[in-house]
Amino acid sequence: MASVFDSPNKLLFGMGSSKTIGEKLKELGVTKVLFIYDQGIKSAGIVDIITEYVTSSGIEIVTYDKVEPNPPDYSVNEAAELGLRENVNGILAVGGGSSLDTGKGVRILLSYKGPISNYYAKLDSAPLDEKIMKPLIVLPTTAGTGSEATPGGVITDSLTHIKRPIICGVSLGIIDPALHVNLPSAITAATGFDTLCHAVEAVTSKHSNRISDVLGLEAITLVGKHLRTAVKDGSNLEAREGMALAATLAGMSLRGPFGGIPHDLGSPLSSVYSIPHGNAVAFLLAEALSYIAPVAPDKVRLVAEALGADIPAEASSEQIGDIARATVNSLYSDANMPTMKSFIPNKEEMLANIDKFYKPSVFSPRPLDLEAATMILSNSYDKSYAKQPERI
Amino acid sequence: MASVFDSPNKLLFGMGSSKTIGEKLKELGVTKVLFIYDQGIKSAGIVDIITEYVTSSGIEIVTYDKVEPNPPDYSVNEAAELGLRENVNGILAVGGGSSLDTGKGVRILLSYKGPISNYYAKLDSAPLDEKIMKPLIVLPTTAGTGSEATPGGVITDSLTHIKRPIICGVSLGIIDPALHVNLPSAITAATGFDTLCHAVEAVTSKHSNRISDVLGLEAITLVGKHLRTAVKDGSNLEAREGMALAATLAGMSLRGPFGGIPHDLGSPLSSVYSIPHGNAVAFLLAEALSYIAPVAPDKVRLVAEALGADIPAEASSEQIGDIARATVNSLYSDANMPTMKSFIPNKEEMLANIDKFYKPSVFSPRPLDLEAATMILSNSYDKSYAKQPERI
Repeated sequence: MASVFDSPNKLLFGMGSSKTIGEKLKELGVTKVLFIYDQGIKSAGIVDIITEYVTSSGIEIVTYDKVEPNPPDYSVNEAAELGLRENVNGILAVGGGSSLDTGKGVRILLSYKGPISNYYAKLDSAPLDEKIMKPLIVLPTTAGTGSEATPGGVITDSLTHIKRPIICGVSLGIIDPALHVNLPSAITAATGFDTLCHAVEAVTSKHSNRISDVLGLEAITLVGKHLRTAVKDGSNLEAREGMALAATLAGMSLRGPFGGIPHDLGSPLSSVYSIPHGNAVAFLLAEALSYIAPVAPDKVRLVAEALGADIPAEASSEQIGDIARATVNSLYSDANMPTMKSFIPNKEEMLANIDKFYKPSVFSPRPLDLEAATMILSNSYDKSYAKQPERI
Repeated sequence: MASVFDSPNKLLFGMGSSKTIGEKLKELGVTKVLFIYDQGIKSAGIVDIITEYVTSSGIEIVTYDKVEPNPPDYSVNEAAELGLRENVNGILAVGGGSSLDTGKGVRILLSYKGPISNYYAKLDSAPLDEKIMKPLIVLPTTAGTGSEATPGGVITDSLTHIKRPIICGVSLGIIDPALHVNLPSAITAATGFDTLCHAVEAVTSKHSNRISDVLGLEAITLVGKHLRTAVKDGSNLEAREGMALAATLAGMSLRGPFGGIPHDLGSPLSSVYSIPHGNAVAFLLAEALSYIAPVAPDKVRLVAEALGADIPAEASSEQIGDIARATVNSLYSDANMPTMKSFIPNKEEMLANIDKFYKPSVFSPRPLDLEAATMILSNSYDKSYAKQPERI
């Protein structure tokens, strides 16, 4: 069993690492845990596996199984009320980003007076004191969100329908790629693209740094190497492990650089049109890379090369952008990702609604005005993602 | 200016980043700082530069300039007494590992009752509460220790002459490779090998993990790429930046895997024979790699390949060990590292004294008994490090 990597969120990564979950809760002093998940994880049989690991350590479980996609404030409030009423002394969140972020919100509300809307963060918000918070262990069941490695989460405000950040880490993230083998291929693809966007946005951020570049570029390399196989053959453990590592590294790479255009536009787009988060951000990645290439050609080159592209040394920044776009589109196609059209029937209506999901991309190396956002959305929409010849 | 990478120790990396040091102290609420350094840093002119950055932010300085190599307990106690007497509300440690580790010890003693010997850590020690401690900013002036990225330090107990670990992080590490350009070539080489040992020990540790492997292997690759140039041409900023990044990544890579044979034997050896730390650990690296190759051939292969070795796919574990040893010895030779003989006149006397610096290497993938330690020391001593043909 691998050791705990003492990152900002402590992380335990490896095949079979979920078996230690009861023991790790005990080490943190937890005797009664609020177990947070959604129905998908239950149906996949993962809840039963984890329940066995937890109860065999003598830990009592209180269940909150109503996690929703793009987790809303009221769900966080409801789960926290349950935890307070039942007097739990720890939290376990298992699932995709929605479960993990719900867990982070609940962690705040077990120590700070609710509702969670009191704790929407601004860039200059002072972090809450995690030392007084109850332990939270998270276990991602997709290779996507990276929330196990990030210092916060995203909660949807139910009054305004706007996604709002909260700041809260975790006591331990346990990443067990063996739990990913039954993930359906469409979710593998969408969450894999979410990972790719995180890493690309970190590396190309105007707030990038050399340390997170190392993590981000390794994540991109792993996606280029393993995503196709993970989508085609979900039981391939090497590919699952590669993608799980990519997701965690990509989450770590965001610590400092924050995000970029695909998430800034795609994340609200996913709320407005009820599109899975990974698909919504993935739509925009290729065009975003081409858009920033003129101002960040070296970074865009690194991204495309990490994905396996061969770029001539003398390529212009425009050519680099074109190659990066083609490289991402080819991966998109190989992973059988659905097109934007298949989720959003009417392009003109989407563009007319742009003020619902446009915001300036603060960390993009190239400023994103409304006109540029319109162009990226429009070009992304027009993509057919015609299937490329299959790689061997 | 790059962003702060929110690692366990927050890290700000980049050319010119030291210019922000006054501003960063202010952000942490520091108005009167204990400035800890040694005479070497003063002579190199770095103290004057940093003093200007600090005082121009209106921060008052109290100076402790008596840092010693292999920092002893009494020096930490003395510096802390000064800090308490002067009522400082923050610490700034500038220099190599000795200054940084002194700073960590002082940080403990500004909040917990001394002497520092009360806080020597065991593997199961509960960490002290850093939330109540005063801010500590560290600025490494060598690309070696990685202490800016590690959760502790090493203090020499003056009664027993044994090195003892303390557990204490830093509020912020600022790594400015521009400050490394005047580092003498011999120190560049020795500290560079210290970095290499950290990363190799992390990657080959039996407590290694996939996340720290990414950081460690990148550090090894950077050493292979930049150490020769940094030694030969200290003003080469690309090489200085590469080595500085390697040192920080290598420090990060130790978070979880801890260390291995070169440090376990070399660190006490450096105390007994007053050998610079980097040299003492470097002596043992090549033979240690060869020794562990039979039980960890894949890891030793990764290390050697990251340093640029070409290893046939069908190589036996013994051959992998031989190639790894030759690769490290070639780097050692190219970097003009002095031999063990030049520090320790009498081999037989050294071996007869082995109980003064032998300890079982807890995290080595291959157990290290007294016989194996004797063999590694003996073989390392016999190396002539004949100069190899110069690479072009």
